[in-house]
Amino acid sequence: MSLAPGTARADAAVVSPEPKDGRHHVVVIGAGFGGLHLVHRLSGAGVRVTLIDQRNHHLFQPLLYQVATTILATSEIAWPIRRLFRDRKEVSTLLARVVGVDTARRVVELEDGDSVGYDTLVVATGARHAYFGHDEWETVAPGLKTLEDATTIRRRLLLAFERAEREPDPAKREALLTFGVIGAGPTGVELAGIIAELAKQTLWQEFRNIDTRKARVMLIEAGPRVLAAFPEDLSTYAAEALKKRGVELRLGQPVSDCTGEGLRIGDEFIPCRTSVWAAGVAASPAAGWLGVEGDRAGRVPVRPDLTLADRPEIFVIGDTAAVKAPDGGPVPGIAPAAKQQGEYVARLIRARLAGERAPEPFHYRHQGNLATIGKGAAVVHMGRLRLRGGLAWWVWGIAHIFFLIGTRSRAAVAWSWLWSYLTGQHSARLITQGSQLNRKN
Amino acid sequence: MSLAPGTARADAAVVSPEPKDGRHHVVVIGAGFGGLHLVHRLSGAGVRVTLIDQRNHHLFQPLLYQVATTILATSEIAWPIRRLFRDRKEVSTLLARVVGVDTARRVVELEDGDSVGYDTLVVATGARHAYFGHDEWETVAPGLKTLEDATTIRRRLLLAFERAEREPDPAKREALLTFGVIGAGPTGVELAGIIAELAKQTLWQEFRNIDTRKARVMLIEAGPRVLAAFPEDLSTYAAEALKKRGVELRLGQPVSDCTGEGLRIGDEFIPCRTSVWAAGVAASPAAGWLGVEGDRAGRVPVRPDLTLADRPEIFVIGDTAAVKAPDGGPVPGIAPAAKQQGEYVARLIRARLAGERAPEPFHYRHQGNLATIGKGAAVVHMGRLRLRGGLAWWVWGIAHIFFLIGTRSRAAVAWSWLWSYLTGQHSARLITQGSQLNRKN
Repeated sequence: MSLAPGTARADAAVVSPEPKDGRHHVVVIGAGFGGLHLVHRLSGAGVRVTLIDQRNHHLFQPLLYQVATTILATSEIAWPIRRLFRDRKEVSTLLARVVGVDTARRVVELEDGDSVGYDTLVVATGARHAYFGHDEWETVAPGLKTLEDATTIRRRLLLAFERAEREPDPAKREALLTFGVIGAGPTGVELAGIIAELAKQTLWQEFRNIDTRKARVMLIEAGPRVLAAFPEDLSTYAAEALKKRGVELRLGQPVSDCTGEGLRIGDEFIPCRTSVWAAGVAASPAAGWLGVEGDRAGRVPVRPDLTLADRPEIFVIGDTAAVKAPDGGPVPGIAPAAKQQGEYVARLIRARLAGERAPEPFHYRHQGNLATIGKGAAVVHMGRLRLRGGLAWWVWGIAHIFFLIGTRSRAAVAWSWLWSYLTGQHSARLITQGSQLNRKN
Repeated sequence: MSLAPGTARADAAVVSPEPKDGRHHVVVIGAGFGGLHLVHRLSGAGVRVTLIDQRNHHLFQPLLYQVATTILATSEIAWPIRRLFRDRKEVSTLLARVVGVDTARRVVELEDGDSVGYDTLVVATGARHAYFGHDEWETVAPGLKTLEDATTIRRRLLLAFERAEREPDPAKREALLTFGVIGAGPTGVELAGIIAELAKQTLWQEFRNIDTRKARVMLIEAGPRVLAAFPEDLSTYAAEALKKRGVELRLGQPVSDCTGEGLRIGDEFIPCRTSVWAAGVAASPAAGWLGVEGDRAGRVPVRPDLTLADRPEIFVIGDTAAVKAPDGGPVPGIAPAAKQQGEYVARLIRARLAGERAPEPFHYRHQGNLATIGKGAAVVHMGRLRLRGGLAWWVWGIAHIFFLIGTRSRAAVAWSWLWSYLTGQHSARLITQGSQLNRKN
């Protein structure tokens, strides 16, 4: 029985790896950077593609922290997946949640009981934040992976100021005006920098009982320096730039407890009502689906060609896969790495279908690291090029505009940034969702 | 004991109508069009102002339906209230939910137990949708008053297409592709027009199993014609324009039941999984707070100067008040009416404080009605001016851009519209919040 694209449900009972139309069926789980670039590169390859995601949109995660900090609107960094492949009639998009893979029958199982058969499967489901065995911290210090995460953090940040404005008790007011960012990688540095800007520049004239400029923004890191992936001189510059913006650095100080009342750093308890988690990620549950043992971060071990051992028809890419970089370390969990892996797998699938020799094993080319600290301050490390300060900031901005999908988003984000740059004002300062006034949230 | 602006909580127990600084204290509940214009016009009047709202943003409700139908982003039509009055140091903004008014003690009571004393109180709390005794219909056919309403409707519209794409049963698929808009006033007409555009123009190339152009969009109205507030020839034009866009009109046909399975119109049951309510509004619960009897729509009866009987220090304005227009009918629940009332009350308060004769009773000047049906089609009725079609559509667009607050929003909305106009694409097609895949929602 044939499995026409997208008709998985009707054909759930009988799934064939060889559909009537004879085309090879590639099923891709996850429309992040890896999945999207794979599907793009399969254009014209003569395969059918089914792209499954539990969201209807692709998200430009590198700018998600700007949604959380009121600079960008949600729709400026997210695109409907269907729209991206509108003109690729051989590509079907499926909004569905995957719960398992039957590798023997070559079938992807969906939450609602449907299933989708595949000839080749690519798992590109990304990562979630990891709390190192303290999952109860998640409600207190949410991480930043989805649009909902970003609007949750935005709501909490803005409500903290609103509550402080009405809080008569000075100690409680101080706790409300203390913000903790846990983890000083690029996301943590970017969040801390903008939260400080928000308090010290954007909001301060708008409150009558509090001085938002006195807000305390802490960046807490277990390791010895910020931006550990960068050369030491750039780390030092970033630390100085953060301090200049009023961010309090707590380096070499792991968080030992995290409650609604505050954070414990070493032996010190700091009252702090709003925390954000930027410390660790863990791969999606894909290892469980595939019946293999993940590494410490839950990532699936793959062979040099990104296939699963003994399952050459299954690829795992992006943050979900444990891949070695040429220097022996792990390939970092960043967009360019996922993109390169997606492109590599597309090449490999094409070669297989054409009966050609498979390409060389996947070789990660590190293009560089970029991080921004705040207005006019960023660090860029690309091979021998090391930039810091204003020029790095422009490079960072232009690179991110360039990588956004579509003219409209580029123009919208450029405009939001220009506006924020010229006026110091943020344009997406909305508290939405749920009970706005619930003290617990 | 003095009640400094915004310190309501500390002083909750003792509230004085005569604060130490001697300035008259005006408390405004609601930062809609009425409340905002009132506060604007009190600039330099020598009064203290406390503006209370349960949201942190003012919302440009006339364009809310465009957020629900994926054209605009939430932040394009909402502005933080604090930001608007940043430079007016005598204005305090309070994010709080009002639960009552003690008119004898002249105190506004907040949900969290705090209270705020006033010398003059202005109630401008707007309206919610009314279901005419069928409150159980609300979960099935949500109305459109808040940003959350708009994102809920947007999610339901987009999920209906996603589910139809995966639905093997033709009857269920048809129900998923049937959309009911209840009420053919401006909001209903605008919603139906854009939902039809979305199905027939924006989405159709993106699905593989369904033809979204075959979606059925019904506009259901108990009265005999659409846009009853307009002259009959403009109603006729609007009805024709809707039909041309594929909207099915059901006029003179009240909805008699509304369930998750479909709508009953007269004796006919139409399977329909997605409905939107645009049929009726009821005033906010302000009549109850003030201890007076509201009219049939819950509106508070006021004297010709918009004060409460026997309470000259309490004003009720906008959708919350039952005010007579010069023609004897009720003043319509539209933004310009609320704005005029806010401005009138500001004038009256100024006159009182200056010991001058009070202005004439409030006189509503009807400036006109505008409604849009879809790309290139609108109706405008302003005094003797009647426009329809393309020109009316441009007038409608320019008028709305003009009334938006702030350069940034004007530019952002203009850009979103231009983009949508040129490409036929919508830029805010996001399914967000909660479980994206829950079949019930």
